[in-house]
Amino acid sequence: MIEKTIRLVVPDWQAGDNPVYKLGAKVLKAIAPENKEQKTITVKTADSNQTLEKENNVTAQSAVLKNIRNTKKVIITEQPNKIITFGGNCLVSQQPIDYLNGIYGEKLGVIWIDAHPDISNPEVFYNEHAMVVGNLLHRGDPAIQKEVDNPLKSNQIFYAGLQEPTNNEKKLIEQAGIKYKVQDENQIDSERVIDWIKENNFEHIYIHLDVDVMNSDSKNFYATYFNNPDLGEIPDNAAVGKMSRKSIWQFISNFSQEYNLVGLTLAEYLPWSAKEMLDLMNNTNIF
Amino acid sequence: MIEKTIRLVVPDWQAGDNPVYKLGAKVLKAIAPENKEQKTITVKTADSNQTLEKENNVTAQSAVLKNIRNTKKVIITEQPNKIITFGGNCLVSQQPIDYLNGIYGEKLGVIWIDAHPDISNPEVFYNEHAMVVGNLLHRGDPAIQKEVDNPLKSNQIFYAGLQEPTNNEKKLIEQAGIKYKVQDENQIDSERVIDWIKENNFEHIYIHLDVDVMNSDSKNFYATYFNNPDLGEIPDNAAVGKMSRKSIWQFISNFSQEYNLVGLTLAEYLPWSAKEMLDLMNNTNIF
Repeated sequence: MIEKTIRLVVPDWQAGDNPVYKLGAKVLKAIAPENKEQKTITVKTADSNQTLEKENNVTAQSAVLKNIRNTKKVIITEQPNKIITFGGNCLVSQQPIDYLNGIYGEKLGVIWIDAHPDISNPEVFYNEHAMVVGNLLHRGDPAIQKEVDNPLKSNQIFYAGLQEPTNNEKKLIEQAGIKYKVQDENQIDSERVIDWIKENNFEHIYIHLDVDVMNSDSKNFYATYFNNPDLGEIPDNAAVGKMSRKSIWQFISNFSQEYNLVGLTLAEYLPWSAKEMLDLMNNTNIF
Repeated sequence: MIEKTIRLVVPDWQAGDNPVYKLGAKVLKAIAPENKEQKTITVKTADSNQTLEKENNVTAQSAVLKNIRNTKKVIITEQPNKIITFGGNCLVSQQPIDYLNGIYGEKLGVIWIDAHPDISNPEVFYNEHAMVVGNLLHRGDPAIQKEVDNPLKSNQIFYAGLQEPTNNEKKLIEQAGIKYKVQDENQIDSERVIDWIKENNFEHIYIHLDVDVMNSDSKNFYATYFNNPDLGEIPDNAAVGKMSRKSIWQFISNFSQEYNLVGLTLAEYLPWSAKEMLDLMNNTNIF
């Protein structure tokens, strides 16, 4: 197979209801290491007001759907076999994983590195980024999961870094039949990951990284949800990440040398200082 | 006069001896508000090893000189009358201010918003970014100030946000004849700024902002020198900024509405989280 890796920039912010997700995608795209073999495509995302309305109990559902469809269109046009995705919020992994599952099928394993299981649905929560694993299993948001043509089986998902799920989430994880362990250490247990790969004979791996899996202490990793300088009330499903940045970086780096990484998402990177610099520029009469 | 504003991206890092300054310039460029009237030019800066040698008691002096000359060349080619500069470290303001002083002469005032006076010279310190005001006064680094064709007079500089200078710096400020007041409040005293403008009949203003003027508490402004996750010993001239971000933003924004801002530098923005994300990408076998 000829190898073709694309870089997909998906500035979807509506599924997480915070425009700063858009800025995260812009920054990741700008700083990424150069590689002339890798085409970079920025997905056109919905223009919508910064105050989003709920539709079918989902924040900005129609904008989210538009973003998902635009992402799908780009991937199908490009026909890659490896995808790097710069989010945006966690929803950005939906179409890349769906597409790669169409190529690799039961040989594909997905490591979901996240403090949260993202397996919700509109009956229990309203922001789509918490439903992306649900959608990939066809157990999430009926309106959005329709775009998933190649749903995952529950054994294809491995949660790493997961914190105590809510009661609703626990039920949904169990109903879906996903095995999981709440992360009490601050390091990923690589042996468990490797056992899961062996048991399932996976040959291709997708890693989804939600940076909020990390402890948000400013000496560990700053650019996460919990350092929002304007943060109001924390939703009750927002478990706080505990992982050490160095251990996650080491895990992904080592893993990518030893296994065939066919996809990587960097999601929910929230560059607060960049946002502040942009605020200054927007309000200064020289730009 | 036909108005022409350019955006100058100056990824000089050598004058501050930290490659992350380069990343700061990249991020600022990427996130800046769109304006099709403003051409953006990235100055080619020296490639050099990340371990820099001292030359004439100045870190990477020849690389710094190259960066200064390339900056000068771009400005002279473009012939703007307003310049926005994305640093890089503080040295990036040298050539824009020199050039605009050539246009506006004694009608130009420079507000230097910084915890530090940047008035050093190679006899008392070794990193060029601490010498830029010295160079602009022709009292800094003999080898680098030669590039300043239109030196400032001491009344043209107003320090805002300045913390207690070192003894050497105090002497140099006094010898240069600059009036200053150490900033004990966390807000800029706008009245003092306005008095200085009136006394000197300035009609055009350049604002240089070194983000380290701000208190580096992560709830105030994170992306500064003092949050370097690998920070070792702090040099003894590194006074800690005390200003509130909101007050500085408000000052610059209000000021730019009421006065003719002909130049703005954003300098020493150090996006540690972006640096960490780049580290991850550099070490992951998919890029």
